[in-house]
Amino acid sequence: MSQIWIENGLFITMDDAQPTFKGHMVVTDDRITYLGTEAPQQLAEGVQKMDGSKLAFLPGLINTHGHAAMSLLRGYSDDQNLQVWLEEKMWPMEGKYVDQDTRAGSALAIVEMLRSGTTSFVDMYDRMDQVALMVEQSGMRGCLTRGVIGLCPADVQDAKLAEAIAFARDWNGKADGRITTMISPHAPYTCPPDYIERFVQAAHDYNLPLHTHMSETITEVEQNVRDYGLRPVEHLDRLGFFSRPALVAHAVHLNDTEIGLLAAKGVSVSHNPVSNLKLASGIARVPELLRAGVTVSLGTDSVASNNNLDLFEEIRFAALLHKGVSGDPTAVPALEALKMGTVYGARAIWQQEDIGSLQEGKKADFIAIDIEQPHFYPKTDIVSHLVYSGSGRDVKHVWVDGRQVVRNGECTLLDEEKIRYEAQASFDRLLQA
Amino acid sequence: MSQIWIENGLFITMDDAQPTFKGHMVVTDDRITYLGTEAPQQLAEGVQKMDGSKLAFLPGLINTHGHAAMSLLRGYSDDQNLQVWLEEKMWPMEGKYVDQDTRAGSALAIVEMLRSGTTSFVDMYDRMDQVALMVEQSGMRGCLTRGVIGLCPADVQDAKLAEAIAFARDWNGKADGRITTMISPHAPYTCPPDYIERFVQAAHDYNLPLHTHMSETITEVEQNVRDYGLRPVEHLDRLGFFSRPALVAHAVHLNDTEIGLLAAKGVSVSHNPVSNLKLASGIARVPELLRAGVTVSLGTDSVASNNNLDLFEEIRFAALLHKGVSGDPTAVPALEALKMGTVYGARAIWQQEDIGSLQEGKKADFIAIDIEQPHFYPKTDIVSHLVYSGSGRDVKHVWVDGRQVVRNGECTLLDEEKIRYEAQASFDRLLQA
Repeated sequence: MSQIWIENGLFITMDDAQPTFKGHMVVTDDRITYLGTEAPQQLAEGVQKMDGSKLAFLPGLINTHGHAAMSLLRGYSDDQNLQVWLEEKMWPMEGKYVDQDTRAGSALAIVEMLRSGTTSFVDMYDRMDQVALMVEQSGMRGCLTRGVIGLCPADVQDAKLAEAIAFARDWNGKADGRITTMISPHAPYTCPPDYIERFVQAAHDYNLPLHTHMSETITEVEQNVRDYGLRPVEHLDRLGFFSRPALVAHAVHLNDTEIGLLAAKGVSVSHNPVSNLKLASGIARVPELLRAGVTVSLGTDSVASNNNLDLFEEIRFAALLHKGVSGDPTAVPALEALKMGTVYGARAIWQQEDIGSLQEGKKADFIAIDIEQPHFYPKTDIVSHLVYSGSGRDVKHVWVDGRQVVRNGECTLLDEEKIRYEAQASFDRLLQA
Repeated sequence: MSQIWIENGLFITMDDAQPTFKGHMVVTDDRITYLGTEAPQQLAEGVQKMDGSKLAFLPGLINTHGHAAMSLLRGYSDDQNLQVWLEEKMWPMEGKYVDQDTRAGSALAIVEMLRSGTTSFVDMYDRMDQVALMVEQSGMRGCLTRGVIGLCPADVQDAKLAEAIAFARDWNGKADGRITTMISPHAPYTCPPDYIERFVQAAHDYNLPLHTHMSETITEVEQNVRDYGLRPVEHLDRLGFFSRPALVAHAVHLNDTEIGLLAAKGVSVSHNPVSNLKLASGIARVPELLRAGVTVSLGTDSVASNNNLDLFEEIRFAALLHKGVSGDPTAVPALEALKMGTVYGARAIWQQEDIGSLQEGKKADFIAIDIEQPHFYPKTDIVSHLVYSGSGRDVKHVWVDGRQVVRNGECTLLDEEKIRYEAQASFDRLLQA
């Protein structure tokens, strides 16, 4: 048994019953076993004590949409029209990927995420075995899925679906439960309806949740209406998509009926504000989604459209953007934005019993922020400070499943220098290949 | 004579003739005396050599609108309607300020700005002598002005204007030229027209530029039309405001005629995207302003509406926000956003001959960024990396006027711990007073 006692920390729990307090936390093996203002009793022999007095402790952040391996393409193409970016830049480079590139890109992404306080991430890509291996090694938590584009002959469709199912089945619950899986048709505009129905059936057969891109651009919504006579939410609903636990990414262009349907079906949304701005996709109707009772979580999308994986930025954009757009300075208050990055993120990936808040009995996924910095002074409202002034760079330590994976800003289980070097080597090779 | 030779750095100059290169820079006393790909010749004896191989060098950032002393009010009131925020929260606290509070708040702001790579800032507030003293001590560059609200009896108006003139006259050119001054009626909606005309006359008399808040909210624009029959730009123009060099902050709500008039009169704009979002003021028409040829620079406004002073954030918001709002992913490209934070900032405060870019003969105001971090890999487009992934936390060293004012992330001329302590003490006293 291993035990850590954090003394005199400032705990921002995301648990409404005890939201923020100065006190103590005990972690025993992989779980939080004590949280309170009084010093803990009955500690194990050899308990490791840690001075928390200059730190704020938060649940680890949860990034609910991304493509880690694309980290190799950071800065390769920016400020372009979507079609140029996608067809002339992203797809040709992605077409040249081999397993080593996927590992190199995923490793770079995982280092960046862990250092900036993200402890769980959703990843949708191909060569997912390689991503899963990196998750296993890094100590991070991942909800992984093979994203399938279905605009291909029937035999290729069959093979891709089989691969997606095999990955989801083989890796679910692996790495001491840190890895969970979903299955994913890439998007309604890249998968024919009958193919989507086969994913839905597989989700039932293997008891898996579903993830997809949905209504990211107005163009795809219009195309959906043209091709199928329905907007994407109703279209997916008809295909049975929402009969399973489902997480949809983007959901930028929604009408009121669609928002109501998402709420009624318990569908979660991954809001990706930075990516949606950078690609000029638009601005999601987040205040309306929240008011309707939809679980809205946050995702970075890949660095090719962001270009970083610091979830504090998504939290800040979520808090600021919707005020400016709605004209209402009370839209998406700081605490709500922070919940989107933590407790709502846990709910979006069906892990709210285990992660997303600091509570006795939950998994010990948490981060420590260095608050002795000018931008956190004077000490007033710590939630406001974290949301409006905080950054992933303020994260000093990170624990996942009770294990310290970042210490003093450096990953403990990964060789960061080697990972930077290998990412560069992969990128250079892709450029020349 | 003191001389520094930076070897093998990556220089992002913001000079279109030689925008980015790997090479060398020599600083002699307060000026850049060499920049080039070849190693410099004819160096002074005792030249200090610095290895730049893991750093990127940029001109120091320029923050063209703020109220430093309000740093004491960070997190004191967020997510409120504007009137509650201003009348119930900000004004009562500001009313209790004494000199010591202004010094404490300004010092906290200066520490935060310097550490995050801002080397020059515009400050509009009262008790400006106290701000100037802190600028002098910190080694920073400041363009300072006493902002005057004119909704008061004539004798108070007279006294305030006299104070504003005295400050501007006494401090202009002080601190080895690091301090420059302007005069500032606070805003068209807080100063009667005849009072604004007296500022314009004073600006002529003392050869000073003018700064004011303008068209931040739709309410004040409507009020201007109601009270004076004109929108704010035409109103200020009639009062002679643009017969002097002028910088206007916010400029959110402009019609095409107003944009044309600002361009024709050579008026510069300080765009404050985060503050405008947070207070739900709206989103400035930056692409249109840039297209019209207006100099658009960036400001944080005070931390009470931001809540931080990291200009990298304003740069990123400027690059992202206008893409999403306009639907054009090529709106405000990364390089243009970085120019807004550097070379356009210098132009906005009439110091383009001396600062804003790295060029031989210019003042040595520059910053060094630690680029050996995961979010700057792979090495592709450094401007894109800085704009879309960079942060003030990545700044390692800062020089102003050839003097190193930040070394390894810590201010060299200021006692940061004392400044944090005094800011807290001031805030606690204001709360209880």
